[in-house]
Amino acid sequence: MRTTVGIIGAGPAGLLLARLLHRAGIDSVVLESRDRAYVEHRQRAGILEQGTVDVLRAAGAGQRMDREGLRHDGIELRFGRRRHRVDFPGLTGGRSVTVYAQTEVCKDLIALQSEEGGPLLFEAEALAVEGAEGDRPRIPFRHQGREDVLECDYVVGCDGFWGVARKAFPAAVSRVFERSYPYAWLGILADVAPSHDELVYARHDRGFALLSMRSPSVSRLYLQVPSGTKAEEWSDDEIWAELERRFETDDDWTLERGPITQKSVTPMRSFVHEPMRHGRLFLAGDAAHIVPPTGAKGLNLAVGDVTTFVRALVHQRETGSPGLLDAYSATCLRRVWQAERFSYDMTTLLHRAPDATDFDARLQLARLERIASSRAAETDLAEAYTGFPLD
Amino acid sequence: MRTTVGIIGAGPAGLLLARLLHRAGIDSVVLESRDRAYVEHRQRAGILEQGTVDVLRAAGAGQRMDREGLRHDGIELRFGRRRHRVDFPGLTGGRSVTVYAQTEVCKDLIALQSEEGGPLLFEAEALAVEGAEGDRPRIPFRHQGREDVLECDYVVGCDGFWGVARKAFPAAVSRVFERSYPYAWLGILADVAPSHDELVYARHDRGFALLSMRSPSVSRLYLQVPSGTKAEEWSDDEIWAELERRFETDDDWTLERGPITQKSVTPMRSFVHEPMRHGRLFLAGDAAHIVPPTGAKGLNLAVGDVTTFVRALVHQRETGSPGLLDAYSATCLRRVWQAERFSYDMTTLLHRAPDATDFDARLQLARLERIASSRAAETDLAEAYTGFPLD
Repeated sequence: MRTTVGIIGAGPAGLLLARLLHRAGIDSVVLESRDRAYVEHRQRAGILEQGTVDVLRAAGAGQRMDREGLRHDGIELRFGRRRHRVDFPGLTGGRSVTVYAQTEVCKDLIALQSEEGGPLLFEAEALAVEGAEGDRPRIPFRHQGREDVLECDYVVGCDGFWGVARKAFPAAVSRVFERSYPYAWLGILADVAPSHDELVYARHDRGFALLSMRSPSVSRLYLQVPSGTKAEEWSDDEIWAELERRFETDDDWTLERGPITQKSVTPMRSFVHEPMRHGRLFLAGDAAHIVPPTGAKGLNLAVGDVTTFVRALVHQRETGSPGLLDAYSATCLRRVWQAERFSYDMTTLLHRAPDATDFDARLQLARLERIASSRAAETDLAEAYTGFPLD
Repeated sequence: MRTTVGIIGAGPAGLLLARLLHRAGIDSVVLESRDRAYVEHRQRAGILEQGTVDVLRAAGAGQRMDREGLRHDGIELRFGRRRHRVDFPGLTGGRSVTVYAQTEVCKDLIALQSEEGGPLLFEAEALAVEGAEGDRPRIPFRHQGREDVLECDYVVGCDGFWGVARKAFPAAVSRVFERSYPYAWLGILADVAPSHDELVYARHDRGFALLSMRSPSVSRLYLQVPSGTKAEEWSDDEIWAELERRFETDDDWTLERGPITQKSVTPMRSFVHEPMRHGRLFLAGDAAHIVPPTGAKGLNLAVGDVTTFVRALVHQRETGSPGLLDAYSATCLRRVWQAERFSYDMTTLLHRAPDATDFDARLQLARLERIASSRAAETDLAEAYTGFPLD
């Protein structure tokens, strides 16, 4: 098999990349190790930045998102029993975010790809990336019990943190930056209307909690728990009781309970691999960088990466200049590090570290107070939350 | 002896307090354990916020400051060999800071107090504060070899971190918040014109450095050094060479060297005592809170505290209402915690911690990049640097 762009991984990065390439008249093949049902159902992020929404629309993948996605013009910060709303459009000159789950984005892109895109092979496990330094990189893979090779002009690794693409970088060029956090998120899906119409980020002495939603009738809620917690350790009643405590306010706000349909624990990690390109091998999304979910940046960074790649490849086709492809890593990393910084700040602003001192707790409250009382500080947050520009 | 307000400590907090009370027609006595020469020569901070300048002027203590102080409309951030200027008036609607050393403020206030103020006793060591919970608190003290007692309506402890005033708070009401840092500042005074006309805050992989000045012909420079460093461990040549490295830029900026006239090491600590009032005993300045010097907030916080106290006392005289006096602690602490937050952020933004990872270093650079590229983030810094309002 051969193609122009070999794409490893059919998460949002790989699927959107295939879609954007198709629209640009560039052929590609996507190899995904899992089956379609798995890809369409794994629960991940759900907040799309304005720029992500724009890219999906321009790619012709925005119809259902525009119909079913929920436009959010703000978030609520909750601390010390107080509530403070951050007004995104008012602070950023009109920007907002859209709540539309990653699983839905994937379903839409898979449907489009099946209708009119290039090959998208499920249960096709990429085994390695070879020849990244030459003109014809190759991806040996296993599909339906037999081994094959995909020959490409370019390979883009969209295969996540555990994928093979990053491993193809020679040790001498790889630099890894990382941080782990001593806590995780216990997330639930519940069949109950969200108790607030925007996301609520709560900082509480007992730990962080987040109220989010998948739809007007499905709530998505998270509790900070110690690293290593198993979802089964928490009964449904315990989860609701703890959520109620952490969302407490001085007014008469109440948290509505409903049947919990899914429980899972998400670890928290910050990770960046530099560079994001080696020869004709490019990394995009989680293959190159992980953020803790507090800033809702993971999916959006992936969209930024593949958009940057397609723009650079089209530029090379049109002008003959490899300048933008050569700059791919530096271009993406500027945005990546801003998102890493923001995600780290949102995480440490709101979570209680096991070794946190009283001084640390007061600092968190002073930071939240600052956001609630300074338009500059609040704008800084709103700009970062609604998204860093794609240059 | 008896007076209305007994003031322990003749640093800037105690001296300004005596001055403000005198202008309000309220009598006071200041007890200072050191001699006058010591108080007039200990090197401390040198950056006055706009609000501090306004208070000193309104107190009739601004003549020499207005003549000799240097108005600064910005600072420079230096990182990754780059230079970024933060324009204070442009970002804050006209606010700036004034470089005028704390020692000079003290000299001016001592001179005024000697001319027209109440008693200011040097080498008068306060031994305790008694009866804070009653109507007539007392300060036993030792002066010129004999013991005496100052009886007061109110006692204000302006006696710094090591003073007796804070110790008079019952353990049951005291809450302490603190953080120490694993580094210190090696500071020098040098007889050479400053190499830049505004302060330069440098973040370097080798550690933080600060270029400041006392006058157009005297430079004040600082190097981050490990905690426990003794000034004698560094030769003059080593200091200049290390400063040159940390201030390196891509342009042709150079650091001018000159004779070093003083060397000292300043430890870094964050500390807050809550509450700042117990009965008729009030704490002001370093007696209640310490900040690391990076944000230049120590002196300015002290000015805020004593201004708040005098306003509250005058309000009680005029209206009979103790409301503002009762609110003293809460009023001051709001501002104190914002300054603690800012000082912590400036410190950790610019210093290299001994256990810093590569991830931490990249986060610092991303933060600096954010300040240099987002007007909101830069405004947040400029507002905090030029000063939090006095409510």
